[in-house]
Amino acid sequence: MKFLPDNVTVSVPAGTDLLQAAALAGLEIKSGCGGEGVCGRCLVRIREGRARVGEGNMAPKYRRLGYVLACRTRVEQDLVVEIPPEARMETTQQVLVDEPSRLLQEKETDALVRYGLQPLCRKFSVALSAPTLVENAPDLARLVAKLGPASGYSEVTTNLSVLRELPEVLRRDDFRVTCTLADLGDGRAEIVHLEPGEAVHPAYGLAVDIGTTTVAAHLVDLASGETLERVGTYNHQIRYGDDVITRIIHSVREERGLEELQQAAVGTINELIDRLLARQNLWPSDIQAVVVAGNTTMTHLFLGVSPKYLRLEPYIPAAARFPSVKAGELGLKVHPEAPVRCMPAVASYLGGDIVSGLLVSGMHQLPGIGLYIDIGTNGEMVLGGRDFLVGCACSAGPAFEGSGITCGMRATAGAIDGVDIDPETLEARVHTVGGEKPLGICGSGLVDLLARMWRAGIIDRAGNFQRVSSPRVRWGDEGPEYVLAWRRESGSGRDVVITEADVKNLLRSKGAVYAGIRSLLRSVDMEQDAVEKVWIAGGFGNYLNIRAAIRIGLLPDLPPEKFVFLGNASVKGARLALLSGRAWQEAEKVAQGITYLELSVGNTFMDEFVSALFLPHTDLRLFPSLEREEVEW
Amino acid sequence: MKFLPDNVTVSVPAGTDLLQAAALAGLEIKSGCGGEGVCGRCLVRIREGRARVGEGNMAPKYRRLGYVLACRTRVEQDLVVEIPPEARMETTQQVLVDEPSRLLQEKETDALVRYGLQPLCRKFSVALSAPTLVENAPDLARLVAKLGPASGYSEVTTNLSVLRELPEVLRRDDFRVTCTLADLGDGRAEIVHLEPGEAVHPAYGLAVDIGTTTVAAHLVDLASGETLERVGTYNHQIRYGDDVITRIIHSVREERGLEELQQAAVGTINELIDRLLARQNLWPSDIQAVVVAGNTTMTHLFLGVSPKYLRLEPYIPAAARFPSVKAGELGLKVHPEAPVRCMPAVASYLGGDIVSGLLVSGMHQLPGIGLYIDIGTNGEMVLGGRDFLVGCACSAGPAFEGSGITCGMRATAGAIDGVDIDPETLEARVHTVGGEKPLGICGSGLVDLLARMWRAGIIDRAGNFQRVSSPRVRWGDEGPEYVLAWRRESGSGRDVVITEADVKNLLRSKGAVYAGIRSLLRSVDMEQDAVEKVWIAGGFGNYLNIRAAIRIGLLPDLPPEKFVFLGNASVKGARLALLSGRAWQEAEKVAQGITYLELSVGNTFMDEFVSALFLPHTDLRLFPSLEREEVEW
Repeated sequence: MKFLPDNVTVSVPAGTDLLQAAALAGLEIKSGCGGEGVCGRCLVRIREGRARVGEGNMAPKYRRLGYVLACRTRVEQDLVVEIPPEARMETTQQVLVDEPSRLLQEKETDALVRYGLQPLCRKFSVALSAPTLVENAPDLARLVAKLGPASGYSEVTTNLSVLRELPEVLRRDDFRVTCTLADLGDGRAEIVHLEPGEAVHPAYGLAVDIGTTTVAAHLVDLASGETLERVGTYNHQIRYGDDVITRIIHSVREERGLEELQQAAVGTINELIDRLLARQNLWPSDIQAVVVAGNTTMTHLFLGVSPKYLRLEPYIPAAARFPSVKAGELGLKVHPEAPVRCMPAVASYLGGDIVSGLLVSGMHQLPGIGLYIDIGTNGEMVLGGRDFLVGCACSAGPAFEGSGITCGMRATAGAIDGVDIDPETLEARVHTVGGEKPLGICGSGLVDLLARMWRAGIIDRAGNFQRVSSPRVRWGDEGPEYVLAWRRESGSGRDVVITEADVKNLLRSKGAVYAGIRSLLRSVDMEQDAVEKVWIAGGFGNYLNIRAAIRIGLLPDLPPEKFVFLGNASVKGARLALLSGRAWQEAEKVAQGITYLELSVGNTFMDEFVSALFLPHTDLRLFPSLEREEVEW
Repeated sequence: MKFLPDNVTVSVPAGTDLLQAAALAGLEIKSGCGGEGVCGRCLVRIREGRARVGEGNMAPKYRRLGYVLACRTRVEQDLVVEIPPEARMETTQQVLVDEPSRLLQEKETDALVRYGLQPLCRKFSVALSAPTLVENAPDLARLVAKLGPASGYSEVTTNLSVLRELPEVLRRDDFRVTCTLADLGDGRAEIVHLEPGEAVHPAYGLAVDIGTTTVAAHLVDLASGETLERVGTYNHQIRYGDDVITRIIHSVREERGLEELQQAAVGTINELIDRLLARQNLWPSDIQAVVVAGNTTMTHLFLGVSPKYLRLEPYIPAAARFPSVKAGELGLKVHPEAPVRCMPAVASYLGGDIVSGLLVSGMHQLPGIGLYIDIGTNGEMVLGGRDFLVGCACSAGPAFEGSGITCGMRATAGAIDGVDIDPETLEARVHTVGGEKPLGICGSGLVDLLARMWRAGIIDRAGNFQRVSSPRVRWGDEGPEYVLAWRRESGSGRDVVITEADVKNLLRSKGAVYAGIRSLLRSVDMEQDAVEKVWIAGGFGNYLNIRAAIRIGLLPDLPPEKFVFLGNASVKGARLALLSGRAWQEAEKVAQGITYLELSVGNTFMDEFVSALFLPHTDLRLFPSLEREEVEW
């Protein structure tokens, strides 16, 4: 069978569904529910041939246009299938790679200065004297005797593969050799790599952020601390579901589910490694250390550890501190003996990505009170400073990631990321990523849109559509909706709309995040004014209009100068842990030092959540600045 | 093609030599030179079909009888090949298993008492409280928090496979679990195995001696220290050569040589494991720790580390302290995460087997001066005690192992292990292993024979045959020879003889051992009377007549009560290291504490060797007891 517009042909057994077939062809189709026929996003059109089409949830308008759900449609004979732009995973745009501005780059360096350069792997060159009948100590003993003093480690061990190479490598350049030592802590190190003579390269390290949606990797020179390349792509696990819950279910329910998800995670990283190696003209074995940050589910899946009990009350992870493993055990395409460390987690829904980001913020070292927020499908937040840290996680839902919203999409080319609505005419002016024709709306666009629609009176504080006189506000397939872009202007040939259901969805998302923040503050009996600094992490944060986010009640009403964007703090923290043993130790300390607030215990969160389902909030006293600005915007 | 008398059929490509073909058929043919056509031992007879027979070294009488060398004969068409008894590896007799007498068994226990029971792996059962929303620490954290105090280890780590099993195992018996902890030293331990609830078995350990010729394994209950089973067999590496040098050459010269030898070593051990498991009705995963003792070459080959430079001056091993590896890395059929430790070596020709044996002797702890001797193809010896240790190795040649001697054989059924010669009639009375018809002569028989032939005047002090009047002394194919057993009495249908060349060969062997001992004494400026105790290790030692060995000048002339037989001390020491962390530490200390005397440096050894090529020695003052006994025997 063939997929259009890529013109990719693939042979599959009859009975294979089109979602799987596309995956086999190396094409990624959006799927929010992991192939359960529920999310209605894996839309494709059959151009030639016949297929068995099953039942599933799909908006009536798509059905009318002849679309079918890829996950519910099985191959019967040779087919030609078209994947429309909306159903495609965008893999060319690398929005979360975190190409940092000059300013952020400097900040990254600052953080390293704070911890000190003491990389996980370092190369040491030594020259041994050639052995004689009298000076006849074994190769390894002579090497270790030299390496100890040269490196400063009190104990230097090795592994089988290094020992197997040692005699020949030593003799290739007259007993001059360069060894990569991996820090094991407590003054101990392991030789993980040998090369004859002087090394051509320094040791390289890989810092990885495994996000539920995207995966980013930085290639780091472990000798200088310099970041040489940044790459990112979508997490290939997406074919098994959009969010962590769907993937946990897949891992538990399917016989090979866990293995598939593990391989998808490793496969995604390997794809990034290939790109990094090609760009820098390096070999896999040149990467000799890896630090991975991810939420607790992603870390479990990456390691091939079942996340089953993360989802079942009382939500217990298999581990929060993970054993150091060898890259070869996981199938990573780097040096097989490279140590792979996963950033320690706090709890099932407060993971190593957050700990990693805290490391970057330095919040845990500051005397005042800070707030660290990462908004994705889950909202994770940590409050505190040097003296205490308390954290929680709330299910924000995937709305801000563009999922579960009629025309939602990720912040890739054609995504509306900024909106202005004329309060008089209710006409919209949109800004898109890459300046392309609008295809849909991404998270930052949705925040903007919500604020603007409320200001223009299109919706009320509860998110209900108002009867206003504009062709843009109309009754659609799913109730009231607002048209942001007409089909003639759009890149998909269809109207780009937001429905009342979408708005309610967004209110729940923003309400959950704000309720989480309030719950943290209440748990330590503080008011939001006590917060001196707010770090916003994650790709969504990077494009967020802070004022708009305050206006809709997503973020607390604090002066703009208190907010700092960290970008992809997860990968940056992984880089710190790669470059500094002290940063790694602090990460372990931070992870253990955070008091985890389980929001499902007690009523605080629920009460706060219900109060936060309004624009901006039931209690307007929490948003004093909004009254002052009323006239300005 | 088919092999007789086993009636085993195997398909091989044309061009395969018969040595390989037999190996493929699972049959072992003697080969001293590793298939080089030199040793003349892989004799077979073609019964049906035609083969391409190449040149090679073979005694004329065998050529006359229609034998061919298996290694020089290549399959051309379907064949029937007979392997005669003399060319067969005996695999039924397990002479070096070291089935100890009651006395030795007690001694073994004694040694353990000296070091204290502190096994490499131990099981601990703990009961965790079930997690709740409030007490929601991760599985691993809760387990480690309990295990630390329960086990006394200050740091408990784990590995990926245990982590992968943890959540399910914990929940299988209501959070009661038994963990096997492997001691990593310095108060650290690793969880290597999990089982739900209380354990059915204790943790079992495997102590292995990888000898060049035979491999012995003991199954040990790590909780009680009890040895449950002892098994042994021939080292399957023998098909690649009899001695370490031939095998080193094979490992270097053949593309897959090292791999073949590694797999042969592991395959031999796995065969023993199968037997142990079957006898005790256990599973592979029940064996959770392994300690291996072997000479330096065997240890290198077992680990798959090239022994190339052991053979080239200045004889440098890759390592003498070997990294701890996981059983799974090597392919051992035990628990894949079981730690595998190799006893530390001293030098290229003073290996972990000797260090292991010293551990059993306790010589390194005694105030007086002791001598430890292991006679095999190489003679290894260590002199000293608490205050110093000095060791060396000399090439004794394989004569005492029955190789390189016309009718030599190992101490298996039918081997002559004791001889008496009537000084008047020169008639021989022989004793054989198992009381079978004589097939050949083994090491202890050869020592006896040499002493008796000298006493009867058949040979002079230099080993030259005398013209005596007896049908048993005759001129054979290879010069003068003495007939121990006539063909009508023998098990092979051929005369069992010893030639003058054999005698010279034996003189070189015994001379090398004695010269080694003398070199050690001279290196510390001592006389043999200073030696208070002599430990004799190895299978050969087990059957040795001490007086006969002194008479031929193999052992120093000391009172019999100073000699102790240790049997297979190598496997016993491996058992100690398995059962006692302190024994392991002492082994490392001993290995590093032995001053290695390289005999090829200086002239001492050569001078001593030349002086020792007589019966018993050039300098009769070194053997005062022989004059006294002249009349008695």
